[in-house]
Amino acid sequence: MVHDNTPLELNNLEMSDKAKPLLAAVVKHIRENVDPITDEFYRLGEGRADRWSYAPGQLELLESAKVKARNSGLWNFFLPNAETGEGLSNLDYAYIAAELGKSPLAPETLNCSAPDTGNMEVLERVGTPEQKETWLKPLLAGEIRSCFAMTEPDVASSDARNISTSAVLDGDEWVINGEKYYISGAGDPRCKIMICMVKTSPEAESFRQQSQILVPMDTPGVEIVGPMCVFGHDDAPHGHMHIKMTDVRVPATNMLWGEGRGFEISQVRLGPGRIHHCMRSIGQAEKALDLLIERGVSREAFGKKIIDLGKNMETVSRMRIEIEAMRLMVLKAARAMDVLGNKEARIWVSMIKAMVPEKVCQIIDQAMQVHGATGLSQWSPLSEMYTGQRTLRFADGPDEVHHHVVARAEVKDFQNSNHRKSDGKGQARGRMFEGP
Amino acid sequence: MVHDNTPLELNNLEMSDKAKPLLAAVVKHIRENVDPITDEFYRLGEGRADRWSYAPGQLELLESAKVKARNSGLWNFFLPNAETGEGLSNLDYAYIAAELGKSPLAPETLNCSAPDTGNMEVLERVGTPEQKETWLKPLLAGEIRSCFAMTEPDVASSDARNISTSAVLDGDEWVINGEKYYISGAGDPRCKIMICMVKTSPEAESFRQQSQILVPMDTPGVEIVGPMCVFGHDDAPHGHMHIKMTDVRVPATNMLWGEGRGFEISQVRLGPGRIHHCMRSIGQAEKALDLLIERGVSREAFGKKIIDLGKNMETVSRMRIEIEAMRLMVLKAARAMDVLGNKEARIWVSMIKAMVPEKVCQIIDQAMQVHGATGLSQWSPLSEMYTGQRTLRFADGPDEVHHHVVARAEVKDFQNSNHRKSDGKGQARGRMFEGP
Amino acid sequence: MVHDNTPLELNNLEMSDKAKPLLAAVVKHIRENVDPITDEFYRLGEGRADRWSYAPGQLELLESAKVKARNSGLWNFFLPNAETGEGLSNLDYAYIAAELGKSPLAPETLNCSAPDTGNMEVLERVGTPEQKETWLKPLLAGEIRSCFAMTEPDVASSDARNISTSAVLDGDEWVINGEKYYISGAGDPRCKIMICMVKTSPEAESFRQQSQILVPMDTPGVEIVGPMCVFGHDDAPHGHMHIKMTDVRVPATNMLWGEGRGFEISQVRLGPGRIHHCMRSIGQAEKALDLLIERGVSREAFGKKIIDLGKNMETVSRMRIEIEAMRLMVLKAARAMDVLGNKEARIWVSMIKAMVPEKVCQIIDQAMQVHGATGLSQWSPLSEMYTGQRTLRFADGPDEVHHHVVARAEVKDFQNSNHRKSDGKGQARGRMFEGP
Amino acid sequence: MVHDNTPLELNNLEMSDKAKPLLAAVVKHIRENVDPITDEFYRLGEGRADRWSYAPGQLELLESAKVKARNSGLWNFFLPNAETGEGLSNLDYAYIAAELGKSPLAPETLNCSAPDTGNMEVLERVGTPEQKETWLKPLLAGEIRSCFAMTEPDVASSDARNISTSAVLDGDEWVINGEKYYISGAGDPRCKIMICMVKTSPEAESFRQQSQILVPMDTPGVEIVGPMCVFGHDDAPHGHMHIKMTDVRVPATNMLWGEGRGFEISQVRLGPGRIHHCMRSIGQAEKALDLLIERGVSREAFGKKIIDLGKNMETVSRMRIEIEAMRLMVLKAARAMDVLGNKEARIWVSMIKAMVPEKVCQIIDQAMQVHGATGLSQWSPLSEMYTGQRTLRFADGPDEVHHHVVARAEVKDFQNSNHRKSDGKGQARGRMFEGP
Repeated sequence: MVHDNTPLELNNLEMSDKAKPLLAAVVKHIRENVDPITDEFYRLGEGRADRWSYAPGQLELLESAKVKARNSGLWNFFLPNAETGEGLSNLDYAYIAAELGKSPLAPETLNCSAPDTGNMEVLERVGTPEQKETWLKPLLAGEIRSCFAMTEPDVASSDARNISTSAVLDGDEWVINGEKYYISGAGDPRCKIMICMVKTSPEAESFRQQSQILVPMDTPGVEIVGPMCVFGHDDAPHGHMHIKMTDVRVPATNMLWGEGRGFEISQVRLGPGRIHHCMRSIGQAEKALDLLIERGVSREAFGKKIIDLGKNMETVSRMRIEIEAMRLMVLKAARAMDVLGNKEARIWVSMIKAMVPEKVCQIIDQAMQVHGATGLSQWSPLSEMYTGQRTLRFADGPDEVHHHVVARAEVKDFQNSNHRKSDGKGQARGRMFEGP
Repeated sequence: MVHDNTPLELNNLEMSDKAKPLLAAVVKHIRENVDPITDEFYRLGEGRADRWSYAPGQLELLESAKVKARNSGLWNFFLPNAETGEGLSNLDYAYIAAELGKSPLAPETLNCSAPDTGNMEVLERVGTPEQKETWLKPLLAGEIRSCFAMTEPDVASSDARNISTSAVLDGDEWVINGEKYYISGAGDPRCKIMICMVKTSPEAESFRQQSQILVPMDTPGVEIVGPMCVFGHDDAPHGHMHIKMTDVRVPATNMLWGEGRGFEISQVRLGPGRIHHCMRSIGQAEKALDLLIERGVSREAFGKKIIDLGKNMETVSRMRIEIEAMRLMVLKAARAMDVLGNKEARIWVSMIKAMVPEKVCQIIDQAMQVHGATGLSQWSPLSEMYTGQRTLRFADGPDEVHHHVVARAEVKDFQNSNHRKSDGKGQARGRMFEGP
Repeated sequence: MVHDNTPLELNNLEMSDKAKPLLAAVVKHIRENVDPITDEFYRLGEGRADRWSYAPGQLELLESAKVKARNSGLWNFFLPNAETGEGLSNLDYAYIAAELGKSPLAPETLNCSAPDTGNMEVLERVGTPEQKETWLKPLLAGEIRSCFAMTEPDVASSDARNISTSAVLDGDEWVINGEKYYISGAGDPRCKIMICMVKTSPEAESFRQQSQILVPMDTPGVEIVGPMCVFGHDDAPHGHMHIKMTDVRVPATNMLWGEGRGFEISQVRLGPGRIHHCMRSIGQAEKALDLLIERGVSREAFGKKIIDLGKNMETVSRMRIEIEAMRLMVLKAARAMDVLGNKEARIWVSMIKAMVPEKVCQIIDQAMQVHGATGLSQWSPLSEMYTGQRTLRFADGPDEVHHHVVARAEVKDFQNSNHRKSDGKGQARGRMFEGP
Repeated sequence: MVHDNTPLELNNLEMSDKAKPLLAAVVKHIRENVDPITDEFYRLGEGRADRWSYAPGQLELLESAKVKARNSGLWNFFLPNAETGEGLSNLDYAYIAAELGKSPLAPETLNCSAPDTGNMEVLERVGTPEQKETWLKPLLAGEIRSCFAMTEPDVASSDARNISTSAVLDGDEWVINGEKYYISGAGDPRCKIMICMVKTSPEAESFRQQSQILVPMDTPGVEIVGPMCVFGHDDAPHGHMHIKMTDVRVPATNMLWGEGRGFEISQVRLGPGRIHHCMRSIGQAEKALDLLIERGVSREAFGKKIIDLGKNMETVSRMRIEIEAMRLMVLKAARAMDVLGNKEARIWVSMIKAMVPEKVCQIIDQAMQVHGATGLSQWSPLSEMYTGQRTLRFADGPDEVHHHVVARAEVKDFQNSNHRKSDGKGQARGRMFEGP
């Protein structure tokens, strides 16, 4: 059973002494340096003719906040145990990620934005010195951005073995052909490099057919067809782009870690990324709860504050309970990655990935309901928050795949355990209520 | 916000080094000394004419296990920071309680049965030396048992101010009249003492009207009318009894802590008791999951193992996720009581009380569904387990009251916090999905 | 699609003019003849030493009500299109069954009790003249009772092909060996005949291996081992019995309809029985809602009537909506049986069987929650109502099997329909909100 | 109790003979005249610089389909019992509305689009001859479109008494000041007239303060500030507009039905409109189910069709069951309006309004989940369908208000009924399972 084999120190979910002042500094940074520029940043971006660019002044605002963060040492927190000496443990970073989740701009100001974090982690772990020099260095410095191309429109990508974009070696170049979509961040003009999942060895066993390869965005044959919307949002200029690759040629040295190791690399990137997502999701849930209460105490109907009508107070309580339960679960998954390593911790990661976005969608939906129609509109952040969380139920594998991972491990543990079986007797008796 | 004011060390949910060997010893004790006698204990009790007694041999079995436990130092764990020197922190005990929850006999073998635990804690904290000598001493020694009489059939006891059993001072005696029900443990022939919530000061302000008083079970005027069933179970001989008190006279010295302090005493008993309940509930949920899998892998229909049909694997995953989330929440509530004290921790306690029994009912119900009709019958412990958990949704306050406590604290925290408010702007932007 | 091929007259769910006065007469009968004896009937039955008998006076009470009903022509309504000339259409009877569902004694007073109704229908449809004379006649007259033995403890009976009780022809006798459980009504001393599902042709194709055969209860080798409880209730003296059959010999002429036709016979009995169950379930839900409101308006807590606290009013509304939706669905399934015949209507029957008991369990559970602990006890009918509905989620096939029947038909209909497919285009556009 | 007083003919939900050929004709019209132009209509509309206009060719396409429909007598079905002689019963129209719900263009081709339908009904019922000549006539002819302005951004409009836009009589003109939002259809360049809810008599009793008044869209002072988005969708050019009115002057004769009768008029419009909404919602749910199955049978993962993985088949069944239950409920509400009139039927209308959009949101969400990320994108109609349904949970009153209406009526019925009360006895006994 998952919990039975687990060392008890997994339950020490306390932030380290080293990280506590960093968390405080991050909160201060968001309040002093990020919150004040957020409205202006988005206002500047409104109504521009070319949605896939930044308006004059936008990047300057962002860069000024990045400089402040970097000067305060609030930079690249996401990279645990790195050669670079930067980075926090997964547990410590999880606390910070929850704060980042409350602000749409904060992650980038700390150079902790997805999908760059995952891409940097992959490059740091498996990149060649040349790959690191060319791509990791400017990414760590926040000078360029990147994307990761996995999902394809024509197959059920929930089963990653279905991936069909091909890469064929032709001399000292790989020639790539295929179609990807929902490539987040590929709309940003600063995005310079894509890590692309390709099929290189169709004849190999099913988990050795795929590879990951570096494709500069300006390589001939890479065509950004357009944005994928989520509901009606295009998230410009970040974007979740639809990309076609036609005879795209990259040097053989762009291969990451070696042919056929695509799935291995996924193991490197996916664990932490999922925890960051989930912890930011909790920040989103906190924000939704704040907005619900704010609305509920400030409007009246039928002679009462809205918060005091019907089931609204119970909704508040259930939200708080779910948020705290999710927070502890994400912290535990992070701790598991620190203590057990990514491979052993993957069940915990699947647990939170299957649990958190689904519940946060419900939480945001309830906050919307208390807002009335305004909650669905551009006057409230809630619809964009919902959209983001709804999409997370597919990103890095749909809920159903994660539930299957958890269940399979559970059944296996049952079968391997002597103490979980009742040998058909069921031990005859339950346990009645015993009073207070 | 609940979590905002909380010291981060609240998240250190690791068992203490001191307690780890005790947990191992408890597990060993259950397997070696309790499991082997459980079936026989209940078999002996079947079909007896007087359901409110023990059959020959039953208590001997139980006592032999108690002796073994006590000799191994596994005794009275529930009493933190006691003068007696016994007891573990709430956090350490919570780990043990989860194990106790898997076995119907285990708690009593360690002298950690409800409602005695709560009664002993109250006596230890507020009893006079005489009260301790007469009642606490034999309870701590496991020589007698006790009950606690709060709920009344004629009023909505969810609002404790409704309690109407009266106690009137007549000379140096209190004269008690009223009716209580669901008095757990009062059916046991070894139950010698009742702590009874009474109304002593109808004219005082609403939270100073009640007192708690010691009523020996053999006092004239105490009449056990009969058992209250839960569904069709009477839980004999423990029982959840319906009691009438008519001109019951006890010495003035039987008053606990002083007239009008009934609610204060409740604060002493309720926090830990609720955590014990909830942690045992998690043991129950673990057992339900084990039984579900055991059934699912051992029967076939439509050419497959039942576990592989339809949504059953997803059910397994959702159960595991919910169990782990509940476990961490209960550990955190226990930790909060250790670090913050009962009063400050009460929101955490209400959170788990509102969360855990409701979810565990659902978990047991799903295990039943996989069992077919057998799951509802006396051939499986599931129906009795369900019954016990269903009742917990009322014990120590119905879910609704706990949700209200949580929500009220949450709204108050929002109103007191500068950082939770968006000042009507809602910060304009959500956070879109950022990819893996 | 289920609804697309359906003739629109399926939606005429109005009771026939012929039946309207009967419904009124049934309501009057219950109020005048049944309600007044109900409490006494059960009071007489309490505390008897032999739970599997009737106390003096009980059957007299019942018979007096039966006589009154029969004299008013309120008798054997359940048998549509019967040679006997009795019986109403399924639709008309469904209205009456909802009323019967509110009273525990009413069905028997009209000779409309399960499992006799199904047994009588089978005998009427497929019995030989001798079988009818011997068993149907006294059943139709309400002189004896009967049971139906299908479920077995050792196999997953949800897949009826698993049934393993064997019947082997030896000369002109069938010799039956096997074990059955949850045989409802077999505890009643008036139960004289059992229809038993047996495996007669293990070598035949899977749906031709089973037969149904008549087994008089007093045949040597039929042993009633004891009652199966449901949540501690044994429902004595009706009972849901565990029966062993050892070398039970019955004449070859006791075979129903012919060897290997067991599944065909099930089609005869199951449709109407499921509708009766579901409609009585709606009567139960109505009663639960009445009890909830009655409690909610008569008790106070925190200065308000309980009904006005928290989500209780929304719960009332959701109950009413669910009840009305279920009622219409059951009426439609009944109508489908009348118009389309049992075979074509079976998808509708599976829909209500999967829908109704699950929802009614939730409705009763919510009524319990508003009652506090009393709702779980013998002081309220709610726990026994819950128990009955919970068991219905297995009777005549577990929910999961019915969902599978519905889904398979749905997918097949999709594949056969030209108009349900979008040919991958999905027709591009949803439909936005258009305002009031 | 709602259902107890109801005449049984309410359950005759069969379409009239007169309407059956019309339904067939509508289905044929959609397949032959509407489906073929739908993709082109929207393709033409894409990427236009002015989103609040139609591209060349769009309206021509639409008009050609309108002509075909009108020539076939498929026109203005929504108007029951009208002087004009057009219109079907609510029940008959409900069947047709379900078909209209599957196509985004179909309603307008039959001149049955919201909000025009409600506006026309109001004008037909309460308009003066001049008002009818000027506005009803071109609306009935499909020459202009209209909008209805009720909701305001600054107050909780769920309590309609909060409406604060003022209209003050100045000579023979009303002078209107205030702000409205979510004014659906006001973005359409063909929208010429607005019915506006205003406060005319702040001193009157609370339900007599409001009036409805006709405001031509080109009246000076009417400013369309911009569109309200729903989840990023602006639904251009129809639009859900934000409108400010500053010293807008309209003739005194523009008042509808008389000062202070605003709420009375709402009763006229809201019943039918809500039924139309709900029935179209069912069309949407049907479409979502079709799309789910289409995707599920056409993609594979893990060696199986997606439809056969995990809980997907059960999801299909639950969707079908919910759809059929909702359909019958909406038909019954329509029938209630036909038989009982709008006032008596309003509980039924509130029941479906609280039931249907919430469930249809869940259904569409599940269809999305089976589609993977494509389901959320512009490549699928699902996100726009979801958005529309989500908004319906507010339109014409939020779910919570409708639940309150239903619950209040239910409690009142309980209190007025002799037969729903158990007089505290609860009739002692439930009804156990009785077997098949």
